[in-house]
Amino acid sequence: MKILAIGAHPDDIEIFMFGLLTLFKERGDQVYLMIATDGSKGGVNKGELLQNKRKLETISALKNLSSPIFLDITDSELGDDPQHKKIIKENILNIMPDLIITHSQNDYHADHRSLSLIASSSVSHYIPIMFCDTLMGINFQPNYYVDITDIFTMKMKAILNHHSQDPQRFVDLSILMNSYRAAQCNSPKGCFAEAYSFTPSFPFSDIRNILPPSPKLKPFYIEDQHGFL
Amino acid sequence: MKILAIGAHPDDIEIFMFGLLTLFKERGDQVYLMIATDGSKGGVNKGELLQNKRKLETISALKNLSSPIFLDITDSELGDDPQHKKIIKENILNIMPDLIITHSQNDYHADHRSLSLIASSSVSHYIPIMFCDTLMGINFQPNYYVDITDIFTMKMKAILNHHSQDPQRFVDLSILMNSYRAAQCNSPKGCFAEAYSFTPSFPFSDIRNILPPSPKLKPFYIEDQHGFL
Amino acid sequence: MKILAIGAHPDDIEIFMFGLLTLFKERGDQVYLMIATDGSKGGVNKGELLQNKRKLETISALKNLSSPIFLDITDSELGDDPQHKKIIKENILNIMPDLIITHSQNDYHADHRSLSLIASSSVSHYIPIMFCDTLMGINFQPNYYVDITDIFTMKMKAILNHHSQDPQRFVDLSILMNSYRAAQCNSPKGCFAEAYSFTPSFPFSDIRNILPPSPKLKPFYIEDQHGFL
Amino acid sequence: MKILAIGAHPDDIEIFMFGLLTLFKERGDQVYLMIATDGSKGGVNKGELLQNKRKLETISALKNLSSPIFLDITDSELGDDPQHKKIIKENILNIMPDLIITHSQNDYHADHRSLSLIASSSVSHYIPIMFCDTLMGINFQPNYYVDITDIFTMKMKAILNHHSQDPQRFVDLSILMNSYRAAQCNSPKGCFAEAYSFTPSFPFSDIRNILPPSPKLKPFYIEDQHGFL
Amino acid sequence: MKILAIGAHPDDIEIFMFGLLTLFKERGDQVYLMIATDGSKGGVNKGELLQNKRKLETISALKNLSSPIFLDITDSELGDDPQHKKIIKENILNIMPDLIITHSQNDYHADHRSLSLIASSSVSHYIPIMFCDTLMGINFQPNYYVDITDIFTMKMKAILNHHSQDPQRFVDLSILMNSYRAAQCNSPKGCFAEAYSFTPSFPFSDIRNILPPSPKLKPFYIEDQHGFL
Amino acid sequence: MKILAIGAHPDDIEIFMFGLLTLFKERGDQVYLMIATDGSKGGVNKGELLQNKRKLETISALKNLSSPIFLDITDSELGDDPQHKKIIKENILNIMPDLIITHSQNDYHADHRSLSLIASSSVSHYIPIMFCDTLMGINFQPNYYVDITDIFTMKMKAILNHHSQDPQRFVDLSILMNSYRAAQCNSPKGCFAEAYSFTPSFPFSDIRNILPPSPKLKPFYIEDQHGFL
Repeated sequence: MKILAIGAHPDDIEIFMFGLLTLFKERGDQVYLMIATDGSKGGVNKGELLQNKRKLETISALKNLSSPIFLDITDSELGDDPQHKKIIKENILNIMPDLIITHSQNDYHADHRSLSLIASSSVSHYIPIMFCDTLMGINFQPNYYVDITDIFTMKMKAILNHHSQDPQRFVDLSILMNSYRAAQCNSPKGCFAEAYSFTPSFPFSDIRNILPPSPKLKPFYIEDQHGFL
Repeated sequence: MKILAIGAHPDDIEIFMFGLLTLFKERGDQVYLMIATDGSKGGVNKGELLQNKRKLETISALKNLSSPIFLDITDSELGDDPQHKKIIKENILNIMPDLIITHSQNDYHADHRSLSLIASSSVSHYIPIMFCDTLMGINFQPNYYVDITDIFTMKMKAILNHHSQDPQRFVDLSILMNSYRAAQCNSPKGCFAEAYSFTPSFPFSDIRNILPPSPKLKPFYIEDQHGFL
Repeated sequence: MKILAIGAHPDDIEIFMFGLLTLFKERGDQVYLMIATDGSKGGVNKGELLQNKRKLETISALKNLSSPIFLDITDSELGDDPQHKKIIKENILNIMPDLIITHSQNDYHADHRSLSLIASSSVSHYIPIMFCDTLMGINFQPNYYVDITDIFTMKMKAILNHHSQDPQRFVDLSILMNSYRAAQCNSPKGCFAEAYSFTPSFPFSDIRNILPPSPKLKPFYIEDQHGFL
Repeated sequence: MKILAIGAHPDDIEIFMFGLLTLFKERGDQVYLMIATDGSKGGVNKGELLQNKRKLETISALKNLSSPIFLDITDSELGDDPQHKKIIKENILNIMPDLIITHSQNDYHADHRSLSLIASSSVSHYIPIMFCDTLMGINFQPNYYVDITDIFTMKMKAILNHHSQDPQRFVDLSILMNSYRAAQCNSPKGCFAEAYSFTPSFPFSDIRNILPPSPKLKPFYIEDQHGFL
Repeated sequence: MKILAIGAHPDDIEIFMFGLLTLFKERGDQVYLMIATDGSKGGVNKGELLQNKRKLETISALKNLSSPIFLDITDSELGDDPQHKKIIKENILNIMPDLIITHSQNDYHADHRSLSLIASSSVSHYIPIMFCDTLMGINFQPNYYVDITDIFTMKMKAILNHHSQDPQRFVDLSILMNSYRAAQCNSPKGCFAEAYSFTPSFPFSDIRNILPPSPKLKPFYIEDQHGFL
Repeated sequence: MKILAIGAHPDDIEIFMFGLLTLFKERGDQVYLMIATDGSKGGVNKGELLQNKRKLETISALKNLSSPIFLDITDSELGDDPQHKKIIKENILNIMPDLIITHSQNDYHADHRSLSLIASSSVSHYIPIMFCDTLMGINFQPNYYVDITDIFTMKMKAILNHHSQDPQRFVDLSILMNSYRAAQCNSPKGCFAEAYSFTPSFPFSDIRNILPPSPKLKPFYIEDQHGFL
């Protein structure tokens, strides 16, 4: 199967989708990666050379998944120019994946929201599109969870490649977000999960047979130590 | 696995859940069936002997799945007496299934809505609960679909056991509903699907690994005849 | 009264709005028809001459209603260029209808969704806008129904004019959709209805006096054969 | 046609539904009125004789519509006892109206919310049920409006019969609420409207042909004085 | 603190936000005002000189708050050109306020809706954005109320500066809207409130410490005359 | 001011509301505490003496706030008997607090959901009612946040009093939940917040002036270490 992940900025795929993508890769899928903006506004040390630096960091971070496609739209301006949709659409249609994963239309960053709308509009009814978790989960109701416990160390390493971004804070954020999502499935301490949202739409009313399995069900109050509670 | 289906009236399991339950049965699960009311108000020929007649029709209709438990609450009064919850709860906890399937809280019939609330309240956070399709689907947004094409003839036969209910009309209804649900997955003419709704709730945030697989994904405009469009 | 229907593609008006428009025509309203895109991507036989062929098919299909206005936007690109809104807005304001009917913002096709947003934005608060049913009704909650039983043969004939589109499948789809919508009103087998959605907005808080009447109310379990159940 | 209005307290029908009921009466419908509680907690002068006083005030206020049925449930306890549902259900089924009008499940007063749930549950799918406006309209989205300008003086008089309730404040409230609802339809100053909400449910997917017509549509910025703006 | 109000047309700030802005001004905040369009389509006397006239009226109306910035986008075309977002974004970022107040995405006028989307997209996650009331409040659920009773005379005077707009009707509208919002807080007759809506979004999950205090809580049925009821 | 917290089980107040209640206590409010059920089903060691043990643990845990009122409803049966509402209502009305805090109607445990409905129904429109966070936050959208960083050690100690419940897991849960809620406000690592939800309802449309202040606003990408990111 062909899976396409589209992140708005150079570190978004690592933070929000790395676990699921690794699971796809491990089961033999072709994983395509696209980064919409140049990340030139990211972080505390904005500046001229930032754009190239971030490209190299991203290639390094994602090297086990695939070589990312950079669309080089100016950071924080995604969607401001009608050309952006043409670029994104053309690149998606070149690949024609079986599933797209990108940001949610409720995310905190306007670039994420624009990308989500543009990607949804670009694929129309030809490709199912699933939304990754949002920054701190506000107004986001996931309905698909994926256990990434075995992958979490790799995920942290991937994020730490983004030296220009003071990346430890994003590792901290991922520990908090992904252990929170695991706890929502009553997975014990030390487990991690990523959460996604998919809304049925013709003809993709139920996409379960594309996805890796859900975390093991863990009832409440398990007597031994196999649950959070 | 233990699966419990709870219908409000003697023919509800057949009309709304028969396909999925047969799939559970075929994969080796234990299927439990419960009918909440006596069905004494159902259909055009209400009368004294109706209650027993419907019991026999139901036993016959469901004989390939399991022997149903009749709770004998008076038809059209489900929930009017606090004892109803006690009866339903006790019977559910006796079984302690891994999954419950019952009506939606948005269904057309007050007994269906009451049963749905009572069952949800009875299981609390101990058992996941999934809602079947509603009568004519109004205000119901399914997120799980199951292909029942191979089972549909059996489903029609099961419904036709309900002689007292003028059952052809419910066969007609099922043909319309289940072909409509199949078409929502772009399955070709002659396919049938049942649709269900599950809302994440702690600790059951994602129940995919309980369910049979979704219908095969069928993209739009398939060149040969393997899609509806 | 002046009624304007706007379809995204050459056969959308026939499939989604033909019944209601015929009712408007029959009561003496002026019916205006607009087709936004050239339909050049539609169907299984895409190709160079398709655009003209579809125009002729559309003119023939809609000849009893009115002569359609073709806006000739490239199929599958509706909304990608800011000029599209200017074209659509100008054409709407030229007519200044009393009611617009177009696709829903929840439909399956990105062109339908774009058209819906553009039309809503174009009319602002000057003209009420009502949304037609979506492809297979997913995430669509209609609140207005129209009985099109007497018109359904004409509707099928209109659809069948679209020879280039392998139109029988759209007839099949309409039979399924429109009999399902009729059954939601408990209309008996052999009845057909179209379903629409209108959301109150200042100053159009209640548009009942523009619309044809609703289907006759049919209570549950009618003893003779005048209901579905 | 038979129309049944059910108010929770002795003055609710006057405040929330009087205009629409008068329109039904004027077109020849049979109007039935039911008051669920005894109103013994209402107003600033609670006391022993209040219950009887309010009954007389209500009979007087509603005398042009019909003689109200008093169910005499203790004020502020509606729904606390399972018998309440039995009483309400029995009284509704005795009448078997074509339409019920009662409070919304989002209203401010727990008695209103309980009555709304009990009435909906009592009628199941046998009778359509429409909800009247709420106290100050919070969380209420009406979709049906009725012009009561010609009736508003009568409505004020009806409310003023409730001497025990310091009724001028409810007249003030009605002036504010009903002129606000009229202004939502762009009706000019001096107009009044009542607002209602109806949600489609099988088999009552569209109840337009039961209701009186909507207020005349008034576009924005009418040059003469026939609109609010 | 720096507060930025953005109105779509020359009188929108006066009608929808004047009270709150005056409270900000009175507590010593810097208030910035921006008017997006030239207002050339507003009112009953459209014409060539209207644009300049409205600018002067606006300067006069808002003189106690601040000198407004006019963006001079053509009235009724806001958002039709991608340049509009660039202009709005640049002007917002020049100010970098602590809070933005603008129209809601559910308002009646397409310019209001476009402005709301553009402003939200422009500020991304850098500035919290709060939405003012809509024209006649349809589909708007406020969650913040501000008591403007002491300011209401000033507000009416500000509106009356818009001579070209036949402004008395907007005074009437404000009296109705703002007394309705006050009554939703059970404030007595003669009180006025403005209503706003804010949705949590990272990192602005709770903005209470930016806002002026809410109206005094007034319980139901206050014995003396300090409540509406 | 009088604040009443109602927990379903003996440790719920500690886990879900302890921080906010301590803030109320510290500013001089009277804090009332009510525990609805006897907690006899809680935890891994159910048994005969559990009920009394939990009472003592609760008294000890809450001793700095107030002496709790125990309603002694059987654990896991809250709402199954109509007497439960009478007991809860009577106890609330005895206190007549200015604000009630209890569980949300979307929580995971049926007792929590029942208590929430019963409390809302009991107070009608006389007392504002705010809902605390749910177990793992699924389907819960908070709109009020409270910084409890300075209180968090006390909160952990309070939870640890519940020896019978294997309380370390609830401390772990609180660390995860409350640091996640703090991070939603971009508070730095080591901060904790509790999250609450309040829905406007007449006459309590805006309750800000009852609550302690929100956490300090922290913009995105603060250069020094005063934010999470």
